[in-house]
Amino acid sequence: MFPKNAWYVACTPDEIADKPLGRTICGQPVALYRGAEGRVAALEDFCPHRGAALSLGAVVDGNLMCGYHGLVMGCDGKAVSMPKQRVGGFPCIRSYPVVERHGFVWIWPGDPERADEAAIPDLFWAHHPEWAYGGGLYHIGCDYRLMIDNLMDLTHEAYVHTDSIGQGEIDEAPVQTRVEGDQVVTSRVMQGIVAPPFWQAAMRAHGLDDQALVDRWQMSRFTAPGHVLIDVGVALAGKGGFEADARDKVSAIVVDFMTPETESSHWYFWGMARHFQPDDDALTDAIRAGQGRIFSQDLAVLEAQQRNQRNFPGRRLLALNIDAGGVRARRILDDLIQAEAA
Amino acid sequence: MFPKNAWYVACTPDEIADKPLGRTICGQPVALYRGAEGRVAALEDFCPHRGAALSLGAVVDGNLMCGYHGLVMGCDGKAVSMPKQRVGGFPCIRSYPVVERHGFVWIWPGDPERADEAAIPDLFWAHHPEWAYGGGLYHIGCDYRLMIDNLMDLTHEAYVHTDSIGQGEIDEAPVQTRVEGDQVVTSRVMQGIVAPPFWQAAMRAHGLDDQALVDRWQMSRFTAPGHVLIDVGVALAGKGGFEADARDKVSAIVVDFMTPETESSHWYFWGMARHFQPDDDALTDAIRAGQGRIFSQDLAVLEAQQRNQRNFPGRRLLALNIDAGGVRARRILDDLIQAEAA
Amino acid sequence: MFPKNAWYVACTPDEIADKPLGRTICGQPVALYRGAEGRVAALEDFCPHRGAALSLGAVVDGNLMCGYHGLVMGCDGKAVSMPKQRVGGFPCIRSYPVVERHGFVWIWPGDPERADEAAIPDLFWAHHPEWAYGGGLYHIGCDYRLMIDNLMDLTHEAYVHTDSIGQGEIDEAPVQTRVEGDQVVTSRVMQGIVAPPFWQAAMRAHGLDDQALVDRWQMSRFTAPGHVLIDVGVALAGKGGFEADARDKVSAIVVDFMTPETESSHWYFWGMARHFQPDDDALTDAIRAGQGRIFSQDLAVLEAQQRNQRNFPGRRLLALNIDAGGVRARRILDDLIQAEAA
Repeated sequence: MFPKNAWYVACTPDEIADKPLGRTICGQPVALYRGAEGRVAALEDFCPHRGAALSLGAVVDGNLMCGYHGLVMGCDGKAVSMPKQRVGGFPCIRSYPVVERHGFVWIWPGDPERADEAAIPDLFWAHHPEWAYGGGLYHIGCDYRLMIDNLMDLTHEAYVHTDSIGQGEIDEAPVQTRVEGDQVVTSRVMQGIVAPPFWQAAMRAHGLDDQALVDRWQMSRFTAPGHVLIDVGVALAGKGGFEADARDKVSAIVVDFMTPETESSHWYFWGMARHFQPDDDALTDAIRAGQGRIFSQDLAVLEAQQRNQRNFPGRRLLALNIDAGGVRARRILDDLIQAEAA
Repeated sequence: MFPKNAWYVACTPDEIADKPLGRTICGQPVALYRGAEGRVAALEDFCPHRGAALSLGAVVDGNLMCGYHGLVMGCDGKAVSMPKQRVGGFPCIRSYPVVERHGFVWIWPGDPERADEAAIPDLFWAHHPEWAYGGGLYHIGCDYRLMIDNLMDLTHEAYVHTDSIGQGEIDEAPVQTRVEGDQVVTSRVMQGIVAPPFWQAAMRAHGLDDQALVDRWQMSRFTAPGHVLIDVGVALAGKGGFEADARDKVSAIVVDFMTPETESSHWYFWGMARHFQPDDDALTDAIRAGQGRIFSQDLAVLEAQQRNQRNFPGRRLLALNIDAGGVRARRILDDLIQAEAA
Repeated sequence: MFPKNAWYVACTPDEIADKPLGRTICGQPVALYRGAEGRVAALEDFCPHRGAALSLGAVVDGNLMCGYHGLVMGCDGKAVSMPKQRVGGFPCIRSYPVVERHGFVWIWPGDPERADEAAIPDLFWAHHPEWAYGGGLYHIGCDYRLMIDNLMDLTHEAYVHTDSIGQGEIDEAPVQTRVEGDQVVTSRVMQGIVAPPFWQAAMRAHGLDDQALVDRWQMSRFTAPGHVLIDVGVALAGKGGFEADARDKVSAIVVDFMTPETESSHWYFWGMARHFQPDDDALTDAIRAGQGRIFSQDLAVLEAQQRNQRNFPGRRLLALNIDAGGVRARRILDDLIQAEAA
């Protein structure tokens, strides 16, 4: 269950650099490619001639040519040409609104009339010289909402990620959840603690004493349909936490875009935009590698959780205070899904 | 959907040289083996004792002995013997008409009463000293009829096989389709062209100038249920094309036998019988390797096409002039299938 | 179809030595672990908080802590604690009766009220200084009853295990089947024969002439739900066979515990308890390796048999005298299953 009238991340630009990409998004097989003047385009991955996968074809003069018999499809889903054929009466296929912005390709799987580019999240850090970004993509065999639950309740860090970002104090600190319009925010602050390994390394990279006591913050912000951006960081204790001067803190935004593939699998675009040492490419690579490892720990937990939904059908789950973020995010999603069904 | 009262290729002789072979043909698990005096035989792959797979057994004195408890089955599907047992009342299993001919083992999955060996295709080149043959077998995850479509419209060579047998002129040349009794023939002739890489290599092997202009032909002949033999070749331009003297041309027959495994998969026996340099075994090996690579390109396209039939149910496909061969072949198959159902 | 009110082998102690184990038993996902004072425990593999797999967690102070958000579950299936939460009202999950005995962990998947430890088989050899044991575990893709059939009719040794324990004389010797209360026993004695390779090696290890004629015995004893213990061995001919003096024979018990995973797969705990050279660890290893190889031969046969049950639905199988052991064992199982359904 997912809303269709929404912007999802379809892919990253590198995935369509050399050739088209076939990817199932919200249950729909899509061919993504660069059309005329390098503009991104997306069509149903179905050639109206004989049903071949257009994503196995090639871009020719800005149009997508089927790799089976050469039917050329325009970015609007209309047949353009085919050797020795008149294509005027050929059936059209769906084209999808797509926009390349902030280092991602965004797709609107629902009603094209309602696609409004202004609704694409504003990722200011993607264009800011003081910020650096690195990320990756995982295919995960679970409902995208289980990942939203995961990210809206970072309590799990204390258990799943014990050797990197987890620490006992996470459990101790109360979590706050609030709804801001169509967003849900859960936040947790830990004061006067020793930083966990991941943040100690970041402090060293930023020239701070990694043994100094710090104030740590985590603020997960959910926006429908599947975006969770998490302000994270540590500042030297008593310097103002999240609001501290840039010299006294290491801060970042954990970036999470979940795009449903099927009802029980999704594409997980993860990354970190950091606000320290932005020109240190080796640091970018090291953080990406570390984050990739951390998120692969979630993967095993989430896929087992998905299997358990099938193995133990009908079991009611608990909704504790720590789960409030996920619960409220699901409520927003349910409303959107119901509105589309109506 | 496939006719059952027809000869299909079950296997090649090398596949049963050392031990029995289990293979599902037209949805029926079959045990193929060499029985008395080396004659090929085929039984249901099901031991009437406890349901073990007979193909895991061994041939003993020309009969197939179950590898589990030693029940010996005759080639007629009747139990022959079992240690310490009287087998007279044991239930019979199906035996299938099988014939070894022209380098293939042919099976008749339908009514044995109607199996007529005269209906096995006459592959004259298999026995002719001026011809050489090499081939292979692929398991392909698609309806065998998608492969028939593929082979009856070689337009795809210009797109799928661009580095071997494809060339732009294929698109330019009109295709002719005709029905000859229970056969369908599509043909295409390209005159005064430069040969594509595969045929240039063949010309060199035959002592011809590989840069000379040639006349090229392709004539695909479909015979139900799943046989497509394609006359292919190039002759020096103006020497008569397909009818040219053997010194002035390199010609061959592309051999394609499709045997359904299930509704959505088939065994693809492919090969090439060539009419030049028949004693050059290294050339046979080189052609087989090249053809295997070319056909593996089709495999990816066809399996994606099969998935699209499931992903986009109910979509109507186009039937253009280039598709006429496949369309007419399917009509013949539909008639056969309906006649069997009646 | 399997009885649930019965003791099954869940795992061996080494499988839960370092961390919990998740295993599906009789269709139920179970988390097995060592609780307080090292006692084995088993819970539904489902955290009542958010449905995570408890088996991915860790044992803390004798309780199983969920690895996702730290809910601690007691061995009785009641929530014990969770950071910052009152768990009094949390739903319980199932706990299973489990007993560690004779080198195995036994589980009762049915009504806990009816679990009687006295019904666990008495494996005297597990504690006897004159006996040694080695074994292993296979996951097998077939109904556990096909394995019972296999073990209750050792005729198959002559066909499946021709290079180790099979020999033509097995076929020659009549098999006796009798029901003893809730047990079924099939036995076969071969007198004055040459031992097969496996037993020749055992004779050598025991200091006997491996070319001497022997009397060989096989006595398979089935106990519901899935236990088959087989007395096997050879004694110097005329010395009394099974009853011969220990110096004149090599004897052992083939140990087989089949635990259903699903309707068409099971966990197969196999091993051999031997009554000769008990202190020779190298011999234990060699026998285990050989037995593992022998049983992997059965695996291929049984999984093909399972596929044939699906491929040839509704076929009646034969029940010969050699099959009587399996037939009678299934009758006992059918009665138990029907009694539970009533």
